[in-house]
Amino acid sequence: MPEIKHVAEGANYTAIEIGSLDELKDYSFTHPVNKQEVKGKVFIKEATHATGTEISFQSLSAHTELSYFHSHKQNEESYVFLRGKGEFQVDDSCFPLKEGTIVRISPSGVRSLRNTSDEELVYIVIQSREGSLEQYSSGDGSRVVHEALWNK
Amino acid sequence: MPEIKHVAEGANYTAIEIGSLDELKDYSFTHPVNKQEVKGKVFIKEATHATGTEISFQSLSAHTELSYFHSHKQNEESYVFLRGKGEFQVDDSCFPLKEGTIVRISPSGVRSLRNTSDEELVYIVIQSREGSLEQYSSGDGSRVVHEALWNK
Repeated sequence: MPEIKHVAEGANYTAIEIGSLDELKDYSFTHPVNKQEVKGKVFIKEATHATGTEISFQSLSAHTELSYFHSHKQNEESYVFLRGKGEFQVDDSCFPLKEGTIVRISPSGVRSLRNTSDEELVYIVIQSREGSLEQYSSGDGSRVVHEALWNK
Repeated sequence: MPEIKHVAEGANYTAIEIGSLDELKDYSFTHPVNKQEVKGKVFIKEATHATGTEISFQSLSAHTELSYFHSHKQNEESYVFLRGKGEFQVDDSCFPLKEGTIVRISPSGVRSLRNTSDEELVYIVIQSREGSLEQYSSGDGSRVVHEALWNK
């Protein structure tokens, strides 16, 4: 199984490597409650020391589906699809997905998905607390004059 | 310029399409404060109605660098690299990046990056409020018995 590699760390950051997107399918995640093994899934919050979001990377085999539906208590999820084609269901609605599709779901939405293509369905799931973002982008960021080390 | 397409919407979700990763370079973003045009960048919070995170998709041309460093006030950022190779700088540390590298940065970290490869550097930036995630994954999610419409 591939392993998360530590790249660099400082007071204000942590950098890791999970490997190429092709390698995602070789990760395996054991659900902490029901002990079920889920192939092609890796969570990174613990490795990056993130405090505002949990991100997972997933690879679902050709012509397979997730074995369950689920909902959340506090957290919004955003699914970002990078490779493959399939279908996504929320509650009683179903719609197509492909590279470049993004789905944002409220905590109470009941969700699942399937891969209808001949290749791996590769996607990222971003979990954050619903309503937690107070300001963002240019409202939260500030440009700073700083020397680039690569120009030294 | 490509445009964000609306795919589907319901009480608990919004689905959009931004196009393929190859098309990212053709997006253009005008900074709301300094009016500078940034090519290859698209934000999706407004389109998905997200409330816990702002996500942007970016494509940086071969052998170019971001023209500025920046920091944040409240928000943690996570950079997820999907294609290309380059270097990332936080404060006075510099380290390599490639497909599968993820960098988590505290609000006060001063950050920039460059593409040292012959192809587009494609990456996702996830902004969420530092310290906002209270519980996550199996601690926040619950499996739900629900009928898959694709089996009907």
